[in-house]
Amino acid sequence: MVEEARETIACALGARPSEVVFTSGGTEADNLAIKGLYWARKRPRILISAVEHHAALDPAYWLADNQGAVVELLPVDDQGRVHPETLRAAIAANPDDVALVSVMWANNEVGTIQPVPELAAIAHAHGIPIHTDAVQAIGQLPVNFAESGVDAMTISGHKVGGPMGVGALLLARGVDPVPVLHGGGQERDVRSGTLDAPAIAGFAAAVQASVDHRSEHATRLTALRDDLVTRVRHAVPDVILNGDPIDRLPGNAHFSFPGCEGDALLMLLDAKGIECSTGSACSAGVAQPSHVLLAMGQDTIRARGSLRFSLGHTSTESDIDRVAAVIAVVVERARRAGLT
Amino acid sequence: MVEEARETIACALGARPSEVVFTSGGTEADNLAIKGLYWARKRPRILISAVEHHAALDPAYWLADNQGAVVELLPVDDQGRVHPETLRAAIAANPDDVALVSVMWANNEVGTIQPVPELAAIAHAHGIPIHTDAVQAIGQLPVNFAESGVDAMTISGHKVGGPMGVGALLLARGVDPVPVLHGGGQERDVRSGTLDAPAIAGFAAAVQASVDHRSEHATRLTALRDDLVTRVRHAVPDVILNGDPIDRLPGNAHFSFPGCEGDALLMLLDAKGIECSTGSACSAGVAQPSHVLLAMGQDTIRARGSLRFSLGHTSTESDIDRVAAVIAVVVERARRAGLT
Repeated sequence: MVEEARETIACALGARPSEVVFTSGGTEADNLAIKGLYWARKRPRILISAVEHHAALDPAYWLADNQGAVVELLPVDDQGRVHPETLRAAIAANPDDVALVSVMWANNEVGTIQPVPELAAIAHAHGIPIHTDAVQAIGQLPVNFAESGVDAMTISGHKVGGPMGVGALLLARGVDPVPVLHGGGQERDVRSGTLDAPAIAGFAAAVQASVDHRSEHATRLTALRDDLVTRVRHAVPDVILNGDPIDRLPGNAHFSFPGCEGDALLMLLDAKGIECSTGSACSAGVAQPSHVLLAMGQDTIRARGSLRFSLGHTSTESDIDRVAAVIAVVVERARRAGLT
Repeated sequence: MVEEARETIACALGARPSEVVFTSGGTEADNLAIKGLYWARKRPRILISAVEHHAALDPAYWLADNQGAVVELLPVDDQGRVHPETLRAAIAANPDDVALVSVMWANNEVGTIQPVPELAAIAHAHGIPIHTDAVQAIGQLPVNFAESGVDAMTISGHKVGGPMGVGALLLARGVDPVPVLHGGGQERDVRSGTLDAPAIAGFAAAVQASVDHRSEHATRLTALRDDLVTRVRHAVPDVILNGDPIDRLPGNAHFSFPGCEGDALLMLLDAKGIECSTGSACSAGVAQPSHVLLAMGQDTIRARGSLRFSLGHTSTESDIDRVAAVIAVVVERARRAGLT
């Protein structure tokens, strides 16, 4: 079952079966890529985008604090994108001391898609491996591991409707990170631990289904999302859409509401049966403004007045109707609350 | 669900709910304990028994090869036991430079139970944290985290009949290993990654059931196991039982068959519908003799002529009858094969 699952996932994502290393999820895959490639390469610099998920940033920061790494955050533009020239310039400072590059496929908060194939070509021109966290992208965007040119790609089960507790790091041939989990030597000695065969089988089925139906799913979500954006703008004329308006995850809409506290909006919307988020799910309950929005050049006040709406398989036009019906009133109340 | 599961597991094993850190399994928990305590303590020496599972030994060896650790294997007697005086002497060489001690609760190959509470008392007399891998012990032996005195204890879901892909490290208050997986900061910042709630719920149910029924289960397995040993000895008079004959895991019987290759025995028994093992499951297909048997002072020839029989919930008296009926013939054939 595990080997069939490996073939299914590889085939769906343009990889070879031997390039699939199963992990316990996206966080472990990111840790394996970043720590493992750093230790394997024995060079100090980690070039990582400023808008990565904590599962990528925090391993890099830990390496800097404890293992001699030098972390250089690749700045992004006001839409959250790393420009190829930015990476080119960062590498050029000293191409020989770069351990790895890590830039996610698409941002989990603001939805902006990164130019991963271009970044991979730049890294490869200097023989530097590049990792991408594609957790958000699978089933939403066309993702082909081989064509992307990346050396390592993180994917996750529960983000494509599969089981929790399972993910994978796709690893190109010849790319050998030092293991993060040592032991029995499973997964060609890169990741030890008894393989979770039932979860792996479910993961493969979910990847297959999400890739098979990606195109119509993305078309449907894009239409819903664009309708949501249009109607929120109509109801709240000074709202700002964050991230790239076109080149973004189909199911993602991320707004700044001037004069509002995100937490106030969140609670007012929740009371009306609408679930959204002020940051990543991992940061729920954390009062700090999103590092993603700050990296995009927003001030803390705007950053804290932002909300993410995520659409998925169960989202319908009536959900959009519901948001459109209440958002003006909710924003007005949040503004008044903010003024007291 | 996760918090209820945490309480269930804590209650069943004599721990506090806040002392349960969920992981992806036993291997990850061992890695977290050994690497995490080594990094947190910033002292070189790791005192670890020579008969540990690879999930404990291999992280220690990696720390020695790459992170400045000095690994000292605690020798065992011919039954596989670490004597308290052994640990006392190892610590005494320089108590201040010991990062941690790691000795498993019971050996996965030969079944011998370690004197963990005595070892914990010795380590604590010097303020040194001690970890135990209790994966084999839960549901087989009485295990109480608080009473054992250990600082960190590895447990695993699928070894107690629960789901694969889930385990935990029990961590006493004030014991703070450096994380192995960084990211969103789940599990009080010790282990990041989205919690696998369904697996955790199943894990808790399995721990609860296995602890509730431990006593009668152990009594039944001990009787079956003793019967197996008696009848194998009757059929093969020169067979040697490895490990402590009394103070061992109830479901474990481990024999050396002089003049035989373990692999030959394995295949001949398999042809008769009997499944057993020459080493740990992780080492299946590996031709090297078991490091556990070598540490017990056996030569490679005897070590390679050894077999483990594991009994569990589905084992019955008729399984023992089957082994008893064929073992003499099988051993005779393996001996002839060994002589050609």
